[in-house]
Amino acid sequence: MSFENRTYTADVTPGESATIAGWVHEVRDLGGIAFLIVRDKTGKLQVKIEKDEMDEELVESALDVARESVVSFTGDVKEEPRAPTDVELVPEEFELVAPADTELPLDPSGKVDAELPTRLDNRTLDLRKPEVKAIFEIRAEVLRAAREYFRSVGCTEINTPKIVATGTEGGTELFPISYFGEEAFMNQSPQLFKQLMAGSGLERVFEIGPIFRAEEHNTPRHLNEATSIDFEGTFCDHEDAMDVVEGIVVAAYEAVNENCAEQLEALDMADAFEVPEGGFPRLTYEEALDRINATGELDERLVYGDDLSTEAERALGEEIGSHYFIMDWPSEIKPFYIKDYDDDAETSTGFDLMHPSMELVSGGQREHRYDPLVEGFEQQGLDPDEFEYYTKMFKYGMPPHAGWGLGAERLVMTMLGLGNIREAVLFPRDRQRLSP
Amino acid sequence: MSFENRTYTADVTPGESATIAGWVHEVRDLGGIAFLIVRDKTGKLQVKIEKDEMDEELVESALDVARESVVSFTGDVKEEPRAPTDVELVPEEFELVAPADTELPLDPSGKVDAELPTRLDNRTLDLRKPEVKAIFEIRAEVLRAAREYFRSVGCTEINTPKIVATGTEGGTELFPISYFGEEAFMNQSPQLFKQLMAGSGLERVFEIGPIFRAEEHNTPRHLNEATSIDFEGTFCDHEDAMDVVEGIVVAAYEAVNENCAEQLEALDMADAFEVPEGGFPRLTYEEALDRINATGELDERLVYGDDLSTEAERALGEEIGSHYFIMDWPSEIKPFYIKDYDDDAETSTGFDLMHPSMELVSGGQREHRYDPLVEGFEQQGLDPDEFEYYTKMFKYGMPPHAGWGLGAERLVMTMLGLGNIREAVLFPRDRQRLSP
Repeated sequence: MSFENRTYTADVTPGESATIAGWVHEVRDLGGIAFLIVRDKTGKLQVKIEKDEMDEELVESALDVARESVVSFTGDVKEEPRAPTDVELVPEEFELVAPADTELPLDPSGKVDAELPTRLDNRTLDLRKPEVKAIFEIRAEVLRAAREYFRSVGCTEINTPKIVATGTEGGTELFPISYFGEEAFMNQSPQLFKQLMAGSGLERVFEIGPIFRAEEHNTPRHLNEATSIDFEGTFCDHEDAMDVVEGIVVAAYEAVNENCAEQLEALDMADAFEVPEGGFPRLTYEEALDRINATGELDERLVYGDDLSTEAERALGEEIGSHYFIMDWPSEIKPFYIKDYDDDAETSTGFDLMHPSMELVSGGQREHRYDPLVEGFEQQGLDPDEFEYYTKMFKYGMPPHAGWGLGAERLVMTMLGLGNIREAVLFPRDRQRLSP
Repeated sequence: MSFENRTYTADVTPGESATIAGWVHEVRDLGGIAFLIVRDKTGKLQVKIEKDEMDEELVESALDVARESVVSFTGDVKEEPRAPTDVELVPEEFELVAPADTELPLDPSGKVDAELPTRLDNRTLDLRKPEVKAIFEIRAEVLRAAREYFRSVGCTEINTPKIVATGTEGGTELFPISYFGEEAFMNQSPQLFKQLMAGSGLERVFEIGPIFRAEEHNTPRHLNEATSIDFEGTFCDHEDAMDVVEGIVVAAYEAVNENCAEQLEALDMADAFEVPEGGFPRLTYEEALDRINATGELDERLVYGDDLSTEAERALGEEIGSHYFIMDWPSEIKPFYIKDYDDDAETSTGFDLMHPSMELVSGGQREHRYDPLVEGFEQQGLDPDEFEYYTKMFKYGMPPHAGWGLGAERLVMTMLGLGNIREAVLFPRDRQRLSP
């Protein structure tokens, strides 16, 4: 059989003949009449089987199929107010395209709840559930909107290597690779490469790609392989970079709001979905400390120089109730490649963009002067010689530049209120999970 | 200084004041008058320095800068027919933003040719050359156009893991990773994952992401890390999949033709760039053999069952002179997960899309039946148990599906007639090159 003339269930027209193809979602046998609900990527359609009036072989074979089998029906589409979508198909031809076992590890009709590990082990079946499929359709829309926004502000898409000779940040752990007998690593951030490209003739660049972090923590909001949305631009300071990320976040919500009505419906969020307005509050680190301390939620008062614990972030997020920035961090708790203020070497231009429930973005203006940069490597205990491929470019006219990295999964997770970041990744990687 | 009010050199308006910022491309000192050519991502602008009439400090400091230093000038923009862009800036303010060494490892003005290794070692400088920057702006446009086309045919973007427990194809070599003490690999293709997603409710999916191949050959058209454009769709046969890839290739050329006039100009290709018309010839393998043998270019005649050597591909490409498909390959020289024709088990539905100079795409209809698939693993010498996460999903209603993978770098390389695939990657990875 050819599927050239297949019609999606959402596209059938009453009064016309159609061939539909999809999965058997449900069989309702009422005696003289039976209904097969066929599901495809666009929705579901009722197929009416009138046992006494239809070809015996068709009736028998169609009613013999197990749920989740792949089937195809050809017949007339009729209006039927009692059908779930007000139309039904009256079949003349039936084909069992691919049978399914009667025992399924996971029930795509959603009648039996499955734990997350079972779902992750059976993503093919899991993504037949409209509310799971919706997450990934929204994720795709978020990435599309991010790219569109980047282009609207003059950014060029780049792809930087994931196999690298040296780690870019020193801080986080790296996965080692054997590269033709040499030791190499999987890159934990495109940081150094995107800076090298900002200093090229491209000036403003973005990348959406995988990053790899061998961190041991196993929490509902960390992944060992994630998708990072990265920006870097010349002649930007940190506040310009904050404007760009605010624009991206708002654009992503707007795009989902405009283009994913059906998906939000499937997630039962159609009424609850709110597009943030932008103009996110920009708190200084010290203001953030004061407001956290004022909540009285922490056992111990935070003092200048403390990093913010998960608990502190939550207290502040609850207090603020919207996206917000924290800026003007103490230099000592921000990476060395982030520039300090020219008139205040103790204060960094680094910033974080926070969702009320967690950090989404880390960024800042970069150190673009050769000597302080090389000193930074040394102070970090890193050998500047190993990074010469990067530092030497700062001797040949490196403009001031700023940028940030935004976790795609965290953006989707917070947007949709998912309880575990693994729900926003098709095939997550963590300490315990390397397969599928 | 703030760059909030920076104007790109391409956007200056005669009669208005502007602040421009960029790199010193050239200094022409004519005695009483001197010209500085400032370059930014949009182009170049002449700055006129009248030594006797301008502020002495400005004149001295501006004329003291080394080429490729980052500078900023503020002043009036005037029409000047003798200037390269018919306008020039008469400066009132000057700032040396970031100095450059007087000795450069590579000359961005292009007056001194550099070998490819030197260029790759100094990509920041290399991409200041308009003709190199153009390649990567075109590459970005190709990816944008590909995604747009995918969406126009109902595909959802997916991201699949790059760290995997098992290799997907067995044939090509894998880079081993140490993953929390376990052995893992960098994925050489999203093949298995995209199939798992085609069988989900998404049905039609695409991914553009990195692939990693530990193959030892070191040629001008192989990379060890590349960007793959992948498609997989249900209820598609191999000819449907061929239609999709043909659509993508034509859409990419069209987009570049429409949106990259300036870049094609920089590459000296404005007149020579041809958009392929589509309707690429679809040769069977046997027809391909006959035509290759008829050229008389090969020392030995090809016989049925032979794979096509680089030499054979070239002979055929020259003969045909346009993109073309080769289909109906002998089953034995195509991967086991590609389906054979139902009525001819010796012939595979696998196909290749060829540019006259090299292979671009490999694809086919997939084996979607559980038993033949598991047998295929065994015949390949692979342990089906290791792939159970994949094969078991074929028991739960796996529709017929087809797909392909297209090398992004080969697409750009052949489109622009580049001599080496490394010219189409910012930071290529090969046996010798792991840095930058």
